[in-house]
Amino acid sequence: MKDVRAGVLLIGDELLSGRTQDTNLGTIAMFLGPLGVSVGEARILPDDARIIAHAVRAFSERFDYVFTTGGIGPTHDDITADAIAAAFDLSIGERDDALEALRERYGEGELNSARRRLARIPNGASLIANPVSQAPGFQTRNVFTLAGVPQIMRGMLADIGHRIEGGRRVHQITVVCEGVGEGDAAAGLADIEQAHEGVSIGSYPFFNDALRGVSFVARGPDAAQLADVERDLKALVARLTQG
Amino acid sequence: MKDVRAGVLLIGDELLSGRTQDTNLGTIAMFLGPLGVSVGEARILPDDARIIAHAVRAFSERFDYVFTTGGIGPTHDDITADAIAAAFDLSIGERDDALEALRERYGEGELNSARRRLARIPNGASLIANPVSQAPGFQTRNVFTLAGVPQIMRGMLADIGHRIEGGRRVHQITVVCEGVGEGDAAAGLADIEQAHEGVSIGSYPFFNDALRGVSFVARGPDAAQLADVERDLKALVARLTQG
Repeated sequence: MKDVRAGVLLIGDELLSGRTQDTNLGTIAMFLGPLGVSVGEARILPDDARIIAHAVRAFSERFDYVFTTGGIGPTHDDITADAIAAAFDLSIGERDDALEALRERYGEGELNSARRRLARIPNGASLIANPVSQAPGFQTRNVFTLAGVPQIMRGMLADIGHRIEGGRRVHQITVVCEGVGEGDAAAGLADIEQAHEGVSIGSYPFFNDALRGVSFVARGPDAAQLADVERDLKALVARLTQG
Repeated sequence: MKDVRAGVLLIGDELLSGRTQDTNLGTIAMFLGPLGVSVGEARILPDDARIIAHAVRAFSERFDYVFTTGGIGPTHDDITADAIAAAFDLSIGERDDALEALRERYGEGELNSARRRLARIPNGASLIANPVSQAPGFQTRNVFTLAGVPQIMRGMLADIGHRIEGGRRVHQITVVCEGVGEGDAAAGLADIEQAHEGVSIGSYPFFNDALRGVSFVARGPDAAQLADVERDLKALVARLTQG
């Protein structure tokens, strides 16, 4: 089975200014993992149509799937749909299927010109249902364009799983080692990684007032092999903490 | 005064797998804002030396300053220092000045080969003090390489402010509008942005069980002009919520 990889583009000035803490990347990664798709890179982009279009094009070529979040609302700073149309040289306009979805939520009086912008979607894209606030996301080639508000983004993921052909699933195990510094574990850890080809082991120190330690996280496609790695890691921890 | 901009590279497989939620980007953005530096783009990169080196080179050319976080610990998965040396074609080895910093923390017996890796720093780079765990960060040209653990990363920022020549400071005001949908505010908002050149206004809807509404965030270099924008936004809110 092949490795299937996704790129994620998180769009919005508010993410770069520190005003808003992104949580969508983690949600997308944990949604994709069980489908056999891993995230290869993410970018946090400003509200700049040229930069967005460039990154969409580059990621669409480089990854099997691309996810964008943010910039598809009704206000003047919402430019993602136009940037994606520009990236793929597609025309864009108000679409009847999208307007129909909006009419489930808004009466004709509420469907002002700003809200009609929510129906502005590149031609040829297929809609992604939005069970939270109706304004749809859309899929253009291998690019899924989702809302930025986390509740709405999560809701849209329900209409994406069936569009994805996953690959080799990556499994993960974690072994925690309390009271030991990373530098004391390093040599044993490198030995374990070398002994198990295809497994990557990360080492993540943690500190708090009461405790210091390291979490070892091993990832790989073979669950049986990971069980062996877990056994070796636990033996390493026993050796380190016995001293 | 000119605009001074930074790019941020957040390094680590754990950020892409959803295991770890990055918070360093927000910390760096809020540290840089008062210095007159805004963040133009951020990337979240895997532990892949080629990808890291490529991004470091690209960001170093494109931005006034670059910050990297993560990948400078003592274990085999810590490859940032080597990637940065490769990016700038610098030699790299164990440095005496860095070893000296490590000796403040570690006795000679504890300074094993893994911990000595913490002194592996590109030649020509200047050290960045680490008041939390001593292992230094470093500056290579306009690139600041910091730890990934948030407490340590924050500690290193104290040795960076004096190295930065900031530019025009961007001010920010926020006006919250409760009980109104974004689509009802859009037209008035676009008018306000058009009337105040150089000010960008973002519109961020929020939802919870009790409340929906929108936050308007205006950013610009001129505090007096932003006060005018704030007045106009408050008038818009009054108009919208009166209906």
